[in-house]
Amino acid sequence: MTANRLIYLPLGGAGEVGMNCYVYGYGPEDRERLIVVDLGVTFPDMDTTPGVDLIMADTTWLEERRDRIEAIFITHAHEDHVGALGHLWSRLKAPVYARRFTATIARLKMEEAGLSTRALHSVLPRPEVVEAGPFRVQFVPISHSIPECSSLIIDTPAGRLLHSGDFKLDPSPLVGEPWDPDAFAALAEERPIKALVCDSTNVFSPHPGRSEATLRAPITELIKGAQGMVVATTFASNIARLQTLAEAARAAGRSICLMGRAMKRMVTAAVESGVLTDFPATVPPEQAVDIPRQNLMLLVTGSQGERRAATAQLSRGKYLGMELKPRDLFLFSSRTIPGNERDVLRVVNALSEMGVDVVDESGGLYHVSGHANRPDLQAFHALLSPQMLIPMHGEHRHLREHVKLAEAAGIAAEIATNGMMLDLTGDTPEVAEYIEAGRRYLDGSVLIGASDGVVRDRIRLALNGHAMVTVLIDENDELLGDAWVELAGLPPVGKGGKPLSETMEAELTDLLSRANPRLLADDGKLDDTIKRVVRQVSVEEIGKKPEVTIVISRLAAE
Amino acid sequence: MTANRLIYLPLGGAGEVGMNCYVYGYGPEDRERLIVVDLGVTFPDMDTTPGVDLIMADTTWLEERRDRIEAIFITHAHEDHVGALGHLWSRLKAPVYARRFTATIARLKMEEAGLSTRALHSVLPRPEVVEAGPFRVQFVPISHSIPECSSLIIDTPAGRLLHSGDFKLDPSPLVGEPWDPDAFAALAEERPIKALVCDSTNVFSPHPGRSEATLRAPITELIKGAQGMVVATTFASNIARLQTLAEAARAAGRSICLMGRAMKRMVTAAVESGVLTDFPATVPPEQAVDIPRQNLMLLVTGSQGERRAATAQLSRGKYLGMELKPRDLFLFSSRTIPGNERDVLRVVNALSEMGVDVVDESGGLYHVSGHANRPDLQAFHALLSPQMLIPMHGEHRHLREHVKLAEAAGIAAEIATNGMMLDLTGDTPEVAEYIEAGRRYLDGSVLIGASDGVVRDRIRLALNGHAMVTVLIDENDELLGDAWVELAGLPPVGKGGKPLSETMEAELTDLLSRANPRLLADDGKLDDTIKRVVRQVSVEEIGKKPEVTIVISRLAAE
Repeated sequence: MTANRLIYLPLGGAGEVGMNCYVYGYGPEDRERLIVVDLGVTFPDMDTTPGVDLIMADTTWLEERRDRIEAIFITHAHEDHVGALGHLWSRLKAPVYARRFTATIARLKMEEAGLSTRALHSVLPRPEVVEAGPFRVQFVPISHSIPECSSLIIDTPAGRLLHSGDFKLDPSPLVGEPWDPDAFAALAEERPIKALVCDSTNVFSPHPGRSEATLRAPITELIKGAQGMVVATTFASNIARLQTLAEAARAAGRSICLMGRAMKRMVTAAVESGVLTDFPATVPPEQAVDIPRQNLMLLVTGSQGERRAATAQLSRGKYLGMELKPRDLFLFSSRTIPGNERDVLRVVNALSEMGVDVVDESGGLYHVSGHANRPDLQAFHALLSPQMLIPMHGEHRHLREHVKLAEAAGIAAEIATNGMMLDLTGDTPEVAEYIEAGRRYLDGSVLIGASDGVVRDRIRLALNGHAMVTVLIDENDELLGDAWVELAGLPPVGKGGKPLSETMEAELTDLLSRANPRLLADDGKLDDTIKRVVRQVSVEEIGKKPEVTIVISRLAAE
Repeated sequence: MTANRLIYLPLGGAGEVGMNCYVYGYGPEDRERLIVVDLGVTFPDMDTTPGVDLIMADTTWLEERRDRIEAIFITHAHEDHVGALGHLWSRLKAPVYARRFTATIARLKMEEAGLSTRALHSVLPRPEVVEAGPFRVQFVPISHSIPECSSLIIDTPAGRLLHSGDFKLDPSPLVGEPWDPDAFAALAEERPIKALVCDSTNVFSPHPGRSEATLRAPITELIKGAQGMVVATTFASNIARLQTLAEAARAAGRSICLMGRAMKRMVTAAVESGVLTDFPATVPPEQAVDIPRQNLMLLVTGSQGERRAATAQLSRGKYLGMELKPRDLFLFSSRTIPGNERDVLRVVNALSEMGVDVVDESGGLYHVSGHANRPDLQAFHALLSPQMLIPMHGEHRHLREHVKLAEAAGIAAEIATNGMMLDLTGDTPEVAEYIEAGRRYLDGSVLIGASDGVVRDRIRLALNGHAMVTVLIDENDELLGDAWVELAGLPPVGKGGKPLSETMEAELTDLLSRANPRLLADDGKLDDTIKRVVRQVSVEEIGKKPEVTIVISRLAAE
């Protein structure tokens, strides 16, 4: 009989921030029973994924082992943990477990994808146990920047694992359960933690994390002091922050108007699932326009400068009847995620042009992170005394630093990036295997592989422009008429002062009308020749090598 | 006789960081004699300018008034102040004045563009005066992050202006002239400053700037403590930093190898122009490979993660024979410019995967800014007591904050963004006129206007993909053969599981072969119909609306 083994395999989130997707397995090699933790997305950018709508882990490995998947667990309702559920569930078809608020969001995701939600189960936190093959899983409440975030206790015959989920050590998170060190200490006392699989995103932040509660006084003071309209933005899922902002508005005698689909959806989900009980009444935009500006606060989406969100819309002019004016106050109660700086600054500068006073988190007063900082991670490690530490959720630099941190405390640790399977059966983590891990893009309504070349081609079009050549060849393999060139995304006029397409057409027509019929009879050679001529002319005239598409139309002999 | 007026017109740099280009004029309205200060570039990004090589101010307004331009002054040799000289000089053709080091770089720019450098004049700092029509201009040395940076004293019949240039108040900049408050106080004593036109980039930095000299001890300590090879990157133009890094290497017994074209070019220019007198001898890469790693430091380009620079090359593997190994030290003695975060982090994570220890400026030990912070600006204002302040070089938010700062000190101030002409003749700045200001792109070897639509088309190709349709129409206005579709940057297979191009072709052929000959006779209508069908099929099959190019080939009647 083969020995059983306990494996860990990240498919997303290990080597990046976002797109979390982790697999655990237990059983004989290559016959392990599997559970999946989180099915998240990450967001496209123009540099690497123009035109893409969403990015998620390539779950081919799991799909090929679908009959071995016992369950999917979702730790919390952030997009980078639940956002791919609607897109990938039908390929995995396992029962999904989440706590109530998370399940509310997960349900919306599945419904939007036209899926039945029968597989979705709302579970209570520990001591409730989900039995999933050889795994016994419990949701352990932990503080983060969204309600009902959970660590997972994953009990296996080979030992107890703790999958931290995203977390911070916040004794007063305002909404949701406070950090409870005794409860976590009890986990390790009950049964030693074999492996702690742990959030790494803030490992470079040197100071202990601050509590959500520290924001209440400065935000209230800021809003009370404002003269004109106040607009505040944060992540819609940060229910505690919305609560803080709303209470500050109430204390300042301001009505609250929610703007942006995600904002309304999250508040609704929070009220429905019972995590938000005392949120002030809100007014819709069509009523808000009649409220005096000094009595109004807008709570809006778009803290990352997203072009279609409410913040960007307001920065461009009137939106849903609301318009910003000089001396209005705009509060970014949020951090700019690396890579979004340009988009956010574009909005801030547009607001500046309107004379709006913009306040952001740079003074440290109006935002706190939802992740555990370096000293918090050290405290967490010390409290749980795991036998080994596997850093997850972070770029490579975060994972590496987290390993160093653990090793300095005498804990065995190993970096596992997406596709790297670790065997956790023994006393130290061992690399077991490398599997093909990649990304899938939701592009319009279609899922495509990141390496399919579709997006690479788009990037090339954007960098190089596109020249399209059409030639007509008659029954005798002779050029019929002139070559025809259409250009897209290329300077129309070359250095000679003549239209670039005409220069190309003249050159091609000249060459092809004098060419050997054997060349014109051979599609491959003709293609190469046309491409070469087009690129030569282009380099000479405009100094660029465009992408070239060639259509050869042949008149069939009668 | 018309009254003379004194005008200020930013064409670049006012409303952005980079692309500096400012115009001053004196004389009767619309007949002012003009001088230009700086001709800089800014850099493209994939979001807004894919495929573009360089971005510079649209100088059409100046070109239309070429006979009125007396001179061009370059304050210092950073790309965002001198980078457009080679590309724009032949359109302006005025004499160019710069100090020696700057002139060395300016000469290279002009030579690369194939221009004569006869118009280029190297001038000494004040008290040397350049007479330029009604203007008397003096270069006043001021500290920055490149040698021989200068403020300009611009004397006019209407009063004395001080154009700050980029600057910081550094009493010990190591290379170049220290900040000399007495010299600047003397300027104002000699003749009151009517208007201070002043660098704004760091107005949000709350603490006084730190001196370049503060870096020497921590950098030396860091490099002395390193075990493996050391690689350090900074802006090549930051000669003082290169000096600091090189001295630290020397103190640690390490040979220095320069890598990257800009690095070698800047050091050469600094030595040639006499600003660098004690730089250690360097070894070329082909010799460096034979030096023991612990005795070597590479000084490399690419602190912003530029893909083709030495840093990124090293992060991808062997470069010029050099290869990084675990426990090598990589020092980013630089700040990441907003917008470059993704590129820099890509490099940092690649280095992390190699096991290289990366140190950056986040601890505040290994980099200082070259610009005056908020308290420094206040001190600068106080020292010069200008009648008015015009903030320049900064995004709108910087300019606005700088105006607030000046007004709080009782100084009249006005925001002027690119294209906004101010009349400085009276006691306060008055908006005189708005001119069409824009950007020009160097795209390959061609200059195109930012609003020409070329780059907009490229962005659309990247976001939407490209479908190209070819149809052949015979002499009787009937479809000949089938419609032909080529796709670029689009998912190849639609939801029906069939190739997207085939679905389009079938739909088009079906429609066109049954269509009324009147439709096929009308290029415009045919175009519209084809476009509509292609987009319909595409939305249905893949949920995207591609860009569509249509080629209709008509066989001529005999």
